[in-house]
Amino acid sequence: MGTTPTSTRAPISPERGPDLPIGVFDSGVGGLTVLRAIRAALPNESTIYLGDTARVPYGTKSRESVLRYSLQASRQLVERGIKLLVVACNTASALSLPELRAELAPLPVLGVVEPGAEAAVAASAAQRHLVLATEATVAQRAYTRSIRALAPRAEVEELACSLFVALAEEGWTHGEVVAAAARAYLGAVVARPERERPDSVILGCTHFPLLADVIRAELGPRPSIVDSATATARAVGVLLDRDALATSARSAPGDLRLLVTDGGARFARLGSRFLGETFQVSDVEVVDL
Amino acid sequence: MGTTPTSTRAPISPERGPDLPIGVFDSGVGGLTVLRAIRAALPNESTIYLGDTARVPYGTKSRESVLRYSLQASRQLVERGIKLLVVACNTASALSLPELRAELAPLPVLGVVEPGAEAAVAASAAQRHLVLATEATVAQRAYTRSIRALAPRAEVEELACSLFVALAEEGWTHGEVVAAAARAYLGAVVARPERERPDSVILGCTHFPLLADVIRAELGPRPSIVDSATATARAVGVLLDRDALATSARSAPGDLRLLVTDGGARFARLGSRFLGETFQVSDVEVVDL
Repeated sequence: MGTTPTSTRAPISPERGPDLPIGVFDSGVGGLTVLRAIRAALPNESTIYLGDTARVPYGTKSRESVLRYSLQASRQLVERGIKLLVVACNTASALSLPELRAELAPLPVLGVVEPGAEAAVAASAAQRHLVLATEATVAQRAYTRSIRALAPRAEVEELACSLFVALAEEGWTHGEVVAAAARAYLGAVVARPERERPDSVILGCTHFPLLADVIRAELGPRPSIVDSATATARAVGVLLDRDALATSARSAPGDLRLLVTDGGARFARLGSRFLGETFQVSDVEVVDL
Repeated sequence: MGTTPTSTRAPISPERGPDLPIGVFDSGVGGLTVLRAIRAALPNESTIYLGDTARVPYGTKSRESVLRYSLQASRQLVERGIKLLVVACNTASALSLPELRAELAPLPVLGVVEPGAEAAVAASAAQRHLVLATEATVAQRAYTRSIRALAPRAEVEELACSLFVALAEEGWTHGEVVAAAARAYLGAVVARPERERPDSVILGCTHFPLLADVIRAELGPRPSIVDSATATARAVGVLLDRDALATSARSAPGDLRLLVTDGGARFARLGSRFLGETFQVSDVEVVDL
């Protein structure tokens, strides 16, 4: 793909910047839903993905650990040459975006929280939002801050749905168990009078788009369901245009490289379902951070 | 507790060995069920527990990562002075016990797989065993090897029940979701003709004793349910007697020290349920491996 290592501090040279890949970093396999949305929206762009599978999940770890892991993973991608970093992990986006931006400047760094919040505000008439996420993302209240920055009087409720992660990884995205889990998490919300129910529900974890049908079935047809992955892919396109970083290869499909920090077998087995494209363990490179 | 650092190679001095604590290492919070069983069986023994919460879970990671993490965690306990190491994590027991024994000799190292297998063989008339465990433990087939070493003609089936871990951590140990999950994992076993059903079911993951009631309800009253935690606590007692390592403090209750590798807040919040004793985040020391 013609990427040579560049220094951490000056990752983009003006001549070749646009044809470098987009870097996508996640704690594991979940960010492949964000990669999928980016590849669907920007099919000519090359991408390089790093899943920190040796330390997954971030969603139940402390701020300090998440920050340290995020910096290590991002530096790995920057060293391989990228024109833009997408932090696909909601937890890492919520906890470490300012630090990553400061550390990697002038490289543009995009998280999933801000695009998700923007899309939710745009989709909501009543500005009553419900954020479904991991424990760590919820504890950070990053969606609440991002939504209120755009709609100061918005009501925002954040709900930790940890089991959804395990369900998506187990492949139990339909059926009795996931329906019961959706009921357990969302039943109290659904039981409220209509005017107290959210009209916007944000899937604030990369795993949750796989459970969108079940979540929709539990919530009924009324609320908008906003997927941060799709919103982020749109934001990537806007940023590439703004900074004149869109690839010059407008006719060929973009390359894809997949890196993980732990054995790639499980990543390959689960990953095709998240990415929506089949790949093998031989397509995955294992790196040490 | 009077423990001073000792070298990795000669951890036990004959004079003070018996009054050193028992070291218990786990990937996270689950091993507290093993610690609980040890403290119940041997109330005068002091214990020191290390939960590698920065890298939990081990159950979905590669052999290489599990081995590296296990060695780091064990060395931390050895440096603080222990007379015996219990590897409470089934995955670490299945994957790294020979390496840990070689590395830490002459320190006695006890895993949870062998005691669990022994108890299952003793409890089973038909020698038809079902092992419920994590993906990594199942992939390793350590219970199958340990059972067949004792009962060569035993039938052993191993079943990965990953969601049980998330359910135990979410505190959903009773109710609709966990019942549906138990049915999804075990329904096919229960539906078999009686003579093809296991008469011994091993809880081969530290989290699963919290779900014992639901598992029992799904399996019915016939099979023995063997808890590796209880079996391991018995094995610890036997080993201490054999090696003359039982504490001389026969009247005072043993001390307890808790170490984790990530922020202790979540560990404290979840841990009391696993340990069966209440403790606070201020009781937990955070260490860097």
